[in-house]
Amino acid sequence: MTPADLDLANALADAAGAAIRPLFRGEWSEERKADRSYVTEADRAAEAAMRALIEDRFPDDGIIGEEYGTRNESAGRQWVLDPIDGTTSFIAGRPIFGTLIALLQDGWPVLGVIDQPIARERWVGRIGEGTTFNGKPAQVCACKELNEAVLGTTTPHQFTGDDVDAFMGVAKSVAERKIIYGGDCYNYGLVASGHVDVVIEAGLKLHDYAALVPVVEGAGGLMSDWQGNPLDAGSDGRVIALGDPARLEDVLEAMG
Amino acid sequence: MTPADLDLANALADAAGAAIRPLFRGEWSEERKADRSYVTEADRAAEAAMRALIEDRFPDDGIIGEEYGTRNESAGRQWVLDPIDGTTSFIAGRPIFGTLIALLQDGWPVLGVIDQPIARERWVGRIGEGTTFNGKPAQVCACKELNEAVLGTTTPHQFTGDDVDAFMGVAKSVAERKIIYGGDCYNYGLVASGHVDVVIEAGLKLHDYAALVPVVEGAGGLMSDWQGNPLDAGSDGRVIALGDPARLEDVLEAMG
Repeated sequence: MTPADLDLANALADAAGAAIRPLFRGEWSEERKADRSYVTEADRAAEAAMRALIEDRFPDDGIIGEEYGTRNESAGRQWVLDPIDGTTSFIAGRPIFGTLIALLQDGWPVLGVIDQPIARERWVGRIGEGTTFNGKPAQVCACKELNEAVLGTTTPHQFTGDDVDAFMGVAKSVAERKIIYGGDCYNYGLVASGHVDVVIEAGLKLHDYAALVPVVEGAGGLMSDWQGNPLDAGSDGRVIALGDPARLEDVLEAMG
Repeated sequence: MTPADLDLANALADAAGAAIRPLFRGEWSEERKADRSYVTEADRAAEAAMRALIEDRFPDDGIIGEEYGTRNESAGRQWVLDPIDGTTSFIAGRPIFGTLIALLQDGWPVLGVIDQPIARERWVGRIGEGTTFNGKPAQVCACKELNEAVLGTTTPHQFTGDDVDAFMGVAKSVAERKIIYGGDCYNYGLVASGHVDVVIEAGLKLHDYAALVPVVEGAGGLMSDWQGNPLDAGSDGRVIALGDPARLEDVLEAMG
């Protein structure tokens, strides 16, 4: 990972934001409102803009994109792109969705960006080099006990079968008024900045979680799967994010 | 309701925002982080600032405040204040909480404000005179069928007993990826601006829902209780907000 990688990551977020902003809270025809085609348009325009920049600067790098698939899939360096994480928030006009950009080295995320283009908030994390929020150092917050924690998750519908009990085990360990729903990637940025303590989710794809790892861990937090193992390109999509790594055992125990 | 009432409502929102902004995303000591006393401080400072303005300009008006209780409770005009609706979002650093201000005339809300002081977004609704968003007219969006709707609700934990089935009846009528969780009062502003179609909640207090009615209805929407009746000071806290009033029967039917 070089300064050129960081420059590119910022340029990708800038390009995605420029593509997304004009399509947020637009005044749409009844047809476009009904089929929500403007979110697909924003998704595709943002990913196309990012892919063009990567192909120009690092033509040998791989790309794994949510909208346009993979390129150079055997490359050691892979850029993982999710132009709009939180499409429902985007559709609903809530500025808590984000563009996710990760650089994987041999399958491990080493650089991640969470960018909120409407509020113009950007978290950039690099493994071993820290995380910034709008250019200033971001740091997680200590959390002495699980019952003091603010717990976030996007939607209860992501948990099915035994996963419901696992999530509810943690939810019951937290004061009810300290659980926030909704938020997608934005919640992980708030972990990195010390405002949210725990996020638990399931069903995430690589493009949903790869960028989160360097952001949360660069700020002093921890991300793992539901067994407490580090996340790589082969994880099963069940993730835990902790501001205070010391709470991992408590969370795993509460999950049962 | 006079222009002086509108001026006061805007002054109240300005004063609340000025009290709240310095306490959002602060860097707190471990103790303050654990007991979250800064949210109480923001709540109280904002309500105190608003009460002082009302007492100065309209000393005979009543006040119903979340933090400091009632004043002149037999007055025909009552100002209903919720300095921070969405305290969990405030604590978590999410700019989707709001200050709620309503003017009740003989128990009926005639003026309402939803103010988001961080993003500086303000909805002002007046029954019979329309709703504005940051000074420009706000209008709801048509929604031809429930399965096209974006449905919002703050947390699944607000529904207990039979209310769970009622909410899930509507949730199952909507595409799963079009349900947004979290958001509190902010979701109702998004209804007024045409981005969200349906909000269903339970357990709201007068200070939670009074301001929402003029905002949603002034923009062309409808608010009711779960029987389809208008909301007044005596409602039971179960509310429906609709961007398109024509969907009321569909929602009531889906609730069973």
